[in-house]
Amino acid sequence: MATGTNTRDRLLAAAADLFYREGVTATGVERLCTAAGVSKRSMYQLFPTKDVLVAESLAAAGPDTNRMFLPDDAETRPRERILHVFRVQEEVATEPDFAGCRFVNTATDLRDPTHPAAAVARDFKQQLTDWFAAEARAGGAKDPALLAKQLTVVFDGAAARAVVTDPDLDGLSVTTATTLLDAAGVA
Amino acid sequence: MATGTNTRDRLLAAAADLFYREGVTATGVERLCTAAGVSKRSMYQLFPTKDVLVAESLAAAGPDTNRMFLPDDAETRPRERILHVFRVQEEVATEPDFAGCRFVNTATDLRDPTHPAAAVARDFKQQLTDWFAAEARAGGAKDPALLAKQLTVVFDGAAARAVVTDPDLDGLSVTTATTLLDAAGVA
Repeated sequence: MATGTNTRDRLLAAAADLFYREGVTATGVERLCTAAGVSKRSMYQLFPTKDVLVAESLAAAGPDTNRMFLPDDAETRPRERILHVFRVQEEVATEPDFAGCRFVNTATDLRDPTHPAAAVARDFKQQLTDWFAAEARAGGAKDPALLAKQLTVVFDGAAARAVVTDPDLDGLSVTTATTLLDAAGVA
Repeated sequence: MATGTNTRDRLLAAAADLFYREGVTATGVERLCTAAGVSKRSMYQLFPTKDVLVAESLAAAGPDTNRMFLPDDAETRPRERILHVFRVQEEVATEPDFAGCRFVNTATDLRDPTHPAAAVARDFKQQLTDWFAAEARAGGAKDPALLAKQLTVVFDGAAARAVVTDPDLDGLSVTTATTLLDAAGVA
């Protein structure tokens, strides 16, 4: 079967990879099918349009994208759990294929908040903000919801800096998160 | 003359507009020449490659892009001058054609730090950071260079939030900058 699960998984993986490395709009269906080793006919049997594939590949890649920043359960202190995210970000930003945040890039690239993939991007970004909020609450933050949004802003702004200015964030991500944690009373 | 100053200006303006609204990679030379009302032959007489046009159009649009956020000389208090930038950002983010930061988007879209336009993006972003640093110094910040980088991170992170999550920043940009100013001792 050319349209079985493997074909679907190969397409989703190739799409997530190419959309991240080369851009959503920049990656044509032709290039994508070649990379996945799948015919265009098979692709369109599984995904009626490129837009659907963009949304589904982002939905498939999203959980791992967020999860890689999160601490394991061994770390229980909310402040340290939050700072862990920014420490990982500083490492990830220096990787040769780092190209910024997958969700921000997709939403920006599409420039259409009504696109199905824009909703997926928003949901995953919200998941990170919700995670920050839960930790902030556990850490006794004055205003956990505000702190969570501020931390998300720092996360995305630091990613932008890594792309535009310097992949070596040199502690900026962690330092800025620390300042916000201190101000919010998360000791 | 089809290759005079007007042709050049029309191409630079159309390029800056389309690259911002639709993306650098997504905008082909054909589309660009049609928008500018210029033949491809004329374009290539003025700009040997699309890459050169991308860099020159960003260099031409850059000063106004940064300047629109800055206060006029009537405001002399460093803290207020810095917060002005974030107040303007909150307004700009709600404009229908807002698509994030022009410099960040170009660098991300190109995914090539050696591209001539990536250097232009870096320079203009650095100009904003340098402006923040000068104001932070005037305002008595403990570490003006660090605060300037932190403020730039907030600026770019808030722009990302406006694109991904909600164009209404609802004070987040100003509130976060305020927290950092307070922590840095800029009263």
